[in-house]
Amino acid sequence: MKITAIRQGVVPISSAIANAYIDFSKMTASVVAITVESGDGRKATGYGFNSNGRYAQPGLLAERFIPRLEEAGELPGHADGGFDPTPAWTAMMKNEKPGGHGDRSVAVGVLDMALWDAAAKLAGVPLWKLLSDRFNGGRHDATAWVYAAGGYYHPGKDVEGLVEEMKRYLGMGYSVVKMKIGGSPGMPLREALLLDLNRIEAVLKLLDGDGSRLCVDVNGRFGLHAALSYGAAIQGFGLRWYEEPLDPLDYSTHATLAENYGPPLATGENLFSMLDARNLIRHGGLRPDRDILQFDPALSYGLVEYLRTLVMLREHGWSPRRCVPHGGHQFALNIATGLGLGGNESYPEVFAPFGGFASGVPVENSRVAMPDVPGIGFEVKNDLWAVLKDL
Amino acid sequence: MKITAIRQGVVPISSAIANAYIDFSKMTASVVAITVESGDGRKATGYGFNSNGRYAQPGLLAERFIPRLEEAGELPGHADGGFDPTPAWTAMMKNEKPGGHGDRSVAVGVLDMALWDAAAKLAGVPLWKLLSDRFNGGRHDATAWVYAAGGYYHPGKDVEGLVEEMKRYLGMGYSVVKMKIGGSPGMPLREALLLDLNRIEAVLKLLDGDGSRLCVDVNGRFGLHAALSYGAAIQGFGLRWYEEPLDPLDYSTHATLAENYGPPLATGENLFSMLDARNLIRHGGLRPDRDILQFDPALSYGLVEYLRTLVMLREHGWSPRRCVPHGGHQFALNIATGLGLGGNESYPEVFAPFGGFASGVPVENSRVAMPDVPGIGFEVKNDLWAVLKDL
Repeated sequence: MKITAIRQGVVPISSAIANAYIDFSKMTASVVAITVESGDGRKATGYGFNSNGRYAQPGLLAERFIPRLEEAGELPGHADGGFDPTPAWTAMMKNEKPGGHGDRSVAVGVLDMALWDAAAKLAGVPLWKLLSDRFNGGRHDATAWVYAAGGYYHPGKDVEGLVEEMKRYLGMGYSVVKMKIGGSPGMPLREALLLDLNRIEAVLKLLDGDGSRLCVDVNGRFGLHAALSYGAAIQGFGLRWYEEPLDPLDYSTHATLAENYGPPLATGENLFSMLDARNLIRHGGLRPDRDILQFDPALSYGLVEYLRTLVMLREHGWSPRRCVPHGGHQFALNIATGLGLGGNESYPEVFAPFGGFASGVPVENSRVAMPDVPGIGFEVKNDLWAVLKDL
Repeated sequence: MKITAIRQGVVPISSAIANAYIDFSKMTASVVAITVESGDGRKATGYGFNSNGRYAQPGLLAERFIPRLEEAGELPGHADGGFDPTPAWTAMMKNEKPGGHGDRSVAVGVLDMALWDAAAKLAGVPLWKLLSDRFNGGRHDATAWVYAAGGYYHPGKDVEGLVEEMKRYLGMGYSVVKMKIGGSPGMPLREALLLDLNRIEAVLKLLDGDGSRLCVDVNGRFGLHAALSYGAAIQGFGLRWYEEPLDPLDYSTHATLAENYGPPLATGENLFSMLDARNLIRHGGLRPDRDILQFDPALSYGLVEYLRTLVMLREHGWSPRRCVPHGGHQFALNIATGLGLGGNESYPEVFAPFGGFASGVPVENSRVAMPDVPGIGFEVKNDLWAVLKDL
């Protein structure tokens, strides 16, 4: 098994949207293509990209990770006769010191995605099937639970615009939706809370008052006081989850919040290694019977590392069903169905063309089926394939 | 106050040395020069670089952080009439999400160092003096405690070579030295430990058996079992410190080790933000009366972030005297004397030209005096200035 070609590019994700922390108007994504040859005449090209929220990594890819992959030479295959991304991953991470899991975790994640796409294509099966066979005893889910993430702040967007947006998601087949809260920097807490309660109640009305169909997302902006104040105000709604109320690394404060807020909490999209994820589990006070873990494999050194995270979770008594990855990409959707996660995020209206699923596959009752094509399925997602095929 | 020019370059730090985790033969460093104009005719150019162990960041600098600084425009000055790096730092970090503190922390650290060098030069004072006046009520140390870090693994280097190296450090005026241990990958623990005990005892003999003059450094390689085994074996030596025995993010295991190993532990060089440092303090079980914190401002978003770390430490009952930064650079030396840290690392024989202090300033009794020149003092460190002036 040998890697014979690697190409990379950068694509803008221009958008006027903003969450509580950053605006996305300058966001970019790296895209890569990796060709793997089996040595017996078979070859396949896999594709990868980084999901939203973190920037493209053309520099780190060119400076460290692509050269190491190019120099890796002959790589041991998997016991099933196919390509195994793990030795390639190890080659990429050679001479990297422990700690400091950011940015490079994105660069490695982009390449890892392409390696898994190539592995599944070489085997002639969808990635969810390869993962199911290699890591899940052949078990897999026929469909994945997905929810519609949106409700961003746009210049000029009012409560009516928010409700209209959520109505569109329901029309697309989603029954659970997510909206941003806490995005009024500089506004006094009481005033911001009243504004957000108004927004939340308007959306809840659309959802027949069913809190289990609504998630709210703070994007890490609150401190303890604001998180508790919002928590007390929304506790009665019984929301599906209250997402990233605090800085992702402030584990102790998560533990305090979890003692004071009963319904589900969700976090983890800004933790980028198994070790960081383990610290959340060890110190964050989260509850394995209800809370949601959103580690995004595409931003976190890829699936090779995510498999370690799943092992760590089991060791700590957490089911993979508690995992609903951030990012809304087909890679996580394959992982969700092949390894039995709880589901996957979806961005019906933002982060195109990277968010979303195979073209023509409908969302029904907030569940989506996987296409039966080799690899991750990029070739049957028309808008994304239009970008990737140019590599 | 305005930033009018920024230039960057990359310098190799070629070296055949290795620690227990990586080899340094492909290590590189970024160097930058930033020109600041005061608006009243004064201007100054400051220089920065990243200290060893993490790679140069030409990509991240060019893609995100230099453009944001260039676009920052007019910046508010400091209350003392001088340049204040904090608003420039905030401009650099605009649109960066929380979490993921690695690589970008190095890019920002390089620029931050140059901003402080420029600030001190504009004020016409050494950086330690600027820091003392702005943050330490005018107090400062006349000299800084330094120790000689070395004892790396070289191909063909034996115990005799190690003792000769340490003897040279003593001859240079250092009374405390540091050597690597745990660098025998694949070797059974018992065998590796016996080898290292042999090396430690040879160096201790040179130091008249005084354990308080010797530090040992694992570079994060051990798990709990190896860390405890080594700890039990070296406990009787009463070493100055036992450094980075565990992965930097494995806080719980640090706490367990601290319950079982009485003499000082040291760690922190691979934690790159105040929030990561706070997690070590909250969860690592370290002891404020003896343990050593080695956060390196040059790798950790610079001094703007390090000031936050020092505030956090005081809030948790830790004196700045417990801090002895990693990196062996003049930036940390200025911080150590200006803000009253415990001292600074020094690399008398490796990582030239970035390690080391002003030319012609001798180390006496493991203490070094600061030159009285404006800025960080690069211009009076001849080998380093030869590299920086080309920018």
